[in-house]
Amino acid sequence: MQAVLRNDGRDVLGYGPPAGHPPLRRFIAGEMRQRGMHVSEEEIVVTNGSQQAIDLIARALVDPGDGVLVENPTYLGAVQVFQSYGAEIDGIPVDSEGAMVSVVPDAIERRRPKLLYLMPNFQNPTSRTMSRSRRESLAAVLASGRVVVVEDDFGGELRYEGEDLPTLKSLDRGGCVVYLSTFGKKLLPGLRVGWLAAPQPLAERIAHLKKISDYSTSVLLQAALHEFCRRGELRRHLGQVVGHYRERRDAMLAALEDCFPRSAEWTRPEGGLVVWVTLPDGVGAEDVAAEASAQGVLVGCGDLFYLGRPRRENLRLAFSQASPVQIRDGVGILGQIINRKIAVQAGRKNPPEQPLPLI
Amino acid sequence: MQAVLRNDGRDVLGYGPPAGHPPLRRFIAGEMRQRGMHVSEEEIVVTNGSQQAIDLIARALVDPGDGVLVENPTYLGAVQVFQSYGAEIDGIPVDSEGAMVSVVPDAIERRRPKLLYLMPNFQNPTSRTMSRSRRESLAAVLASGRVVVVEDDFGGELRYEGEDLPTLKSLDRGGCVVYLSTFGKKLLPGLRVGWLAAPQPLAERIAHLKKISDYSTSVLLQAALHEFCRRGELRRHLGQVVGHYRERRDAMLAALEDCFPRSAEWTRPEGGLVVWVTLPDGVGAEDVAAEASAQGVLVGCGDLFYLGRPRRENLRLAFSQASPVQIRDGVGILGQIINRKIAVQAGRKNPPEQPLPLI
Repeated sequence: MQAVLRNDGRDVLGYGPPAGHPPLRRFIAGEMRQRGMHVSEEEIVVTNGSQQAIDLIARALVDPGDGVLVENPTYLGAVQVFQSYGAEIDGIPVDSEGAMVSVVPDAIERRRPKLLYLMPNFQNPTSRTMSRSRRESLAAVLASGRVVVVEDDFGGELRYEGEDLPTLKSLDRGGCVVYLSTFGKKLLPGLRVGWLAAPQPLAERIAHLKKISDYSTSVLLQAALHEFCRRGELRRHLGQVVGHYRERRDAMLAALEDCFPRSAEWTRPEGGLVVWVTLPDGVGAEDVAAEASAQGVLVGCGDLFYLGRPRRENLRLAFSQASPVQIRDGVGILGQIINRKIAVQAGRKNPPEQPLPLI
Repeated sequence: MQAVLRNDGRDVLGYGPPAGHPPLRRFIAGEMRQRGMHVSEEEIVVTNGSQQAIDLIARALVDPGDGVLVENPTYLGAVQVFQSYGAEIDGIPVDSEGAMVSVVPDAIERRRPKLLYLMPNFQNPTSRTMSRSRRESLAAVLASGRVVVVEDDFGGELRYEGEDLPTLKSLDRGGCVVYLSTFGKKLLPGLRVGWLAAPQPLAERIAHLKKISDYSTSVLLQAALHEFCRRGELRRHLGQVVGHYRERRDAMLAALEDCFPRSAEWTRPEGGLVVWVTLPDGVGAEDVAAEASAQGVLVGCGDLFYLGRPRRENLRLAFSQASPVQIRDGVGILGQIINRKIAVQAGRKNPPEQPLPLI
């Protein structure tokens, strides 16, 4: 920030172009090309985090009554955006290979949706990654050009093992993928800087909506971020956080192995920020989350991410903000709560002598 | 920024509450109360500049086909927002006492608008200020509660002469005024921090829309801005810029007096950032602006601000960014262009020997 204030103080404290600070757009396009996506800087629109990218895309494309397909479960903040523009939402199930792409052609035929919103890498909340073969068959489906895919790659660079898979944008031959990502997850949420890459003339339409939404994202933040990237600091930072997060993920997986009952299941994410737990039959996520919260352990309830109600309940455990020791302690507390519930259920044995505090 | 990073680095780089950084909301509410407006911090929503405040208010309140009343001429960026939500726009004329409030009751009766969008102080683009008596009669009309007034006070503290007049918000007894303003005009446009103050439960609904629009405005910027305000720096800065801008306004008014023909008219704004010129009959704003631009003088064309076409054409001259010497030179060039057009018109005397470069 000091550097950009010193060098371009007058410019970075004034209004900037709605589509974004040109050097930052150029940098983003270059990074995307290095990851195999064919985009020019004119196709980039800088946004206030990826939330605004989702909102602007929906504002440009979704009218009341339009269908939108999303993974089920998915990110609630996206569903709320689509609903706010009057969309009718349908879900695509997610399994260990990510969204079940095989149901997409039929869903397109039946519902004629405007948008298909997907998180192929480390999907939120399931942490599943879409397999290469599914990406390729989806690209073949999309070549018909009948639906716009919104590819939310919020954490694509936070990979801790396995090989990078091609983004849908890089497989897109029909010009129907709008890609979005953010500096929030890999750098600093408090900056609120993300971006989208859309084919022309959609990018121009979205830039106009950005202009009437809030004129532009802070030029000071964009210019400082660009300076940080230009100096190679983002690359260095990514190397560091990937190591930190891998250690935390491993601590969480080890603690789950040690403390959770065999009747629970959980993912082994190759990247991202969360592990997705499927609770044993009959154990309720809300109860577990409330008891854990009373003991200082915060977890996400699976219901928050579902359209409709799943047969078995889930917890989303975030590992990025806690230390390995905190993770081990927190997972231990969760394991005790779940084991106690299983014990109570199985014949009401060993009930706790004192009622547990509930929030 | 250094201070907040040192003291609260972890917090200011994370996600913040969608309605805004609590200390900043508290500060804003306190400042508004000092200006006679009865608001609590819960009624404040921090936005990315005032543009987002306008957008969120319209998103909350305007459905397709709803009527919206605006001053005519008015700020184009607001009209575009209302249109994007499907509003039907009607204009209220502006004279030397500001918006002609006398036509409002009839317009409400006929069009049943959802919103009435007004800039009572130093209106953009006319630079007119609504008189006290008009403010009071508008408040009486509003007491019926049949329409929400959006009071855009973008530059209310940039007053160079005359007494402060009560805001519509301070006269509001029916809880039907939504007030908005920004730190952009008085401090730094590049921060993109503004706010709105709306009665509950509208403020909560707008905070939810803020959350799905972009989650929150950068906490780092909000916290740094709050620190700046808390230390009294904003107050000191305002004292300085009011002096600077008054000097520039005076330079512009003096230059207009010296260089413009008697058949042109212009305002003498008590504050704000622009002077509004009405060109002599038959002199076109676009022609003047194009010729001026070719000579390095940038002005706003009046047409950009009108619903429909006015009988006489206008220029909006901004004085905040140019030095008094630049202002004198720029107004001089404009005066020559206008005088030449009048001369050509009046019998095709003294045509220029060389055609002027046009952009």
